[in-house]
Amino acid sequence: MSSQLPTILGIDLGGTNIEAAVVRDGKILASKKKKTRASKGADAVLGRIVETAEKALDQVEDRKAVEGVCIGAPGVIDPSSGMVMRAPNLDWQNVPLGEELQKRLGLPVVVDNDVNIGVLGEYVYGAGRGSLHMVGVFVGTGIGGGIVINGHSHYGSRGAAGEIGHTIVRARGRKCSCGREGCVEAYSSKTSMEKMIRHQIQRGRKSSVLAIMKDKGKEKLSSSVVEAALEDKDGLMEETLKVAQFHLGLLAANLVNTLDPEVIVFGGGLVERLGQGFVDPIANVATRYYIRQSGAEKVRLLAGELGDDAGPVGAAVVAQRRIGSA
Amino acid sequence: MSSQLPTILGIDLGGTNIEAAVVRDGKILASKKKKTRASKGADAVLGRIVETAEKALDQVEDRKAVEGVCIGAPGVIDPSSGMVMRAPNLDWQNVPLGEELQKRLGLPVVVDNDVNIGVLGEYVYGAGRGSLHMVGVFVGTGIGGGIVINGHSHYGSRGAAGEIGHTIVRARGRKCSCGREGCVEAYSSKTSMEKMIRHQIQRGRKSSVLAIMKDKGKEKLSSSVVEAALEDKDGLMEETLKVAQFHLGLLAANLVNTLDPEVIVFGGGLVERLGQGFVDPIANVATRYYIRQSGAEKVRLLAGELGDDAGPVGAAVVAQRRIGSA
Repeated sequence: MSSQLPTILGIDLGGTNIEAAVVRDGKILASKKKKTRASKGADAVLGRIVETAEKALDQVEDRKAVEGVCIGAPGVIDPSSGMVMRAPNLDWQNVPLGEELQKRLGLPVVVDNDVNIGVLGEYVYGAGRGSLHMVGVFVGTGIGGGIVINGHSHYGSRGAAGEIGHTIVRARGRKCSCGREGCVEAYSSKTSMEKMIRHQIQRGRKSSVLAIMKDKGKEKLSSSVVEAALEDKDGLMEETLKVAQFHLGLLAANLVNTLDPEVIVFGGGLVERLGQGFVDPIANVATRYYIRQSGAEKVRLLAGELGDDAGPVGAAVVAQRRIGSA
Repeated sequence: MSSQLPTILGIDLGGTNIEAAVVRDGKILASKKKKTRASKGADAVLGRIVETAEKALDQVEDRKAVEGVCIGAPGVIDPSSGMVMRAPNLDWQNVPLGEELQKRLGLPVVVDNDVNIGVLGEYVYGAGRGSLHMVGVFVGTGIGGGIVINGHSHYGSRGAAGEIGHTIVRARGRKCSCGREGCVEAYSSKTSMEKMIRHQIQRGRKSSVLAIMKDKGKEKLSSSVVEAALEDKDGLMEETLKVAQFHLGLLAANLVNTLDPEVIVFGGGLVERLGQGFVDPIANVATRYYIRQSGAEKVRLLAGELGDDAGPVGAAVVAQRRIGSA
């Protein structure tokens, strides 16, 4: 019986790293990572993607078993043409990523948004497995999201669905990086947390956060800095995290009241570091705001299980679904 | 060629009225309305539903052409069993509405939530026709909603999806009737508008709203009172409506940023009275908060087209889909 799932090359193209992995049934058989070096331009990056892919493929016994490629890119993607319309992190505009890789790798290639792909990885093989409807919330320098309805990524009419970081939870509230006010991202992203911390320190508040950043050689509030400051019982860090979690709780409640998913999965560096301990305070806030309390215990707010693997594993799911088992 | 759509009896069970209509392909062939008289108990109401249905059926030439019944009820419904779990407006708990009507009418009966049904009516035959994803926002004494994804009502994992009136748009904001704070319903429902107006009048603000209510013999801020006060250029009414529209605009933006539908259709008495003039200021606010501006002109915020007919027409759609053309 040939019930075996296809072997896929999943690629995660980030602003910093390219990660390529050969994946079958949610398991990574081989992988390779390289720096993206986006500043060298799209053509150089395309070359580096192919190199990374080849290195990963070289590690598997039966290279010919690989049936297709799926690559996740940050930004606005047209999944049907494989075109990257805009990717600010890469400084890309209208790059025909799918077409180019198909030519260079000689395999069918599908392209999708990196967050959508990661969410689908968690949906099939991670914290969301077995559910029908799921929302993924990615907490990083911004707040991203992906929505799964009836087992499928929900793209929306313009491919713009899932921009949950710009859910307004506080009318006329804090200024967001997007230029508007009151978005959850203005309270709960790492960038916003750092801004709040710096602002309070400037106002004379005592905190060890900046010293920890210096110690670790970090210019930004990284997840490891947050973790160290919390271990240090830094009051300002604790308070700032609480504010972030409160607003993420309102976001989660809005998602539950609107979409009623079984699971909301949280991902991103901070969640990987702090685990369910990061998510539980969010759940405590959210639960209070569920309008339908009956069965509320069935709605689970969970930390992602796949970490960095969500990208390649999710990419394999997307490829499997779109390329078919050829 | 027997491509004709089935003839369905659609029933809208409200807290005040029961409306039954024989519908084919979005057109009402015959209809009958009766008072609900919920205070007389579930059994009496069931009797009145059957009477109303029979009267509507009596008006059509070929009664035998009617292939099925769909009834929309307010509250929490289990569509699979046809049970009304809770309907506060009717003071019902666990009433087997589907089963009872099936027995008494001798036709297959499906039951669904009244707002979901109305939204599906607008989706297929009204302002949402031709779209793939749509959200319906119902502005009444509360704020209800229904979500259509890929042409299907989205119920969610507990059947609790679409509770968009309790989207938190102002963290720790105004107290809502649900007991929480900052829900859009606390700013934009007719009940909340009335509360704001009475509060301002108590504080000494001049307004003709209460006089208009008295003139019209209304105890509550009805849609006709709002319309008359606006015609009267009552400043407090204008301001209160603006506040309501601002928060509905934030809700619409959240829905667009999350779900990216082609259309958001607004319904309810106020919308029927004021038409697109009620919706345009909401759209003006919402548009400013769309994170994806590209293609934003394709997202349409529209007043419903079907008015009271959305109920029976939507019921026919639901029946057609679930009973099939037998």
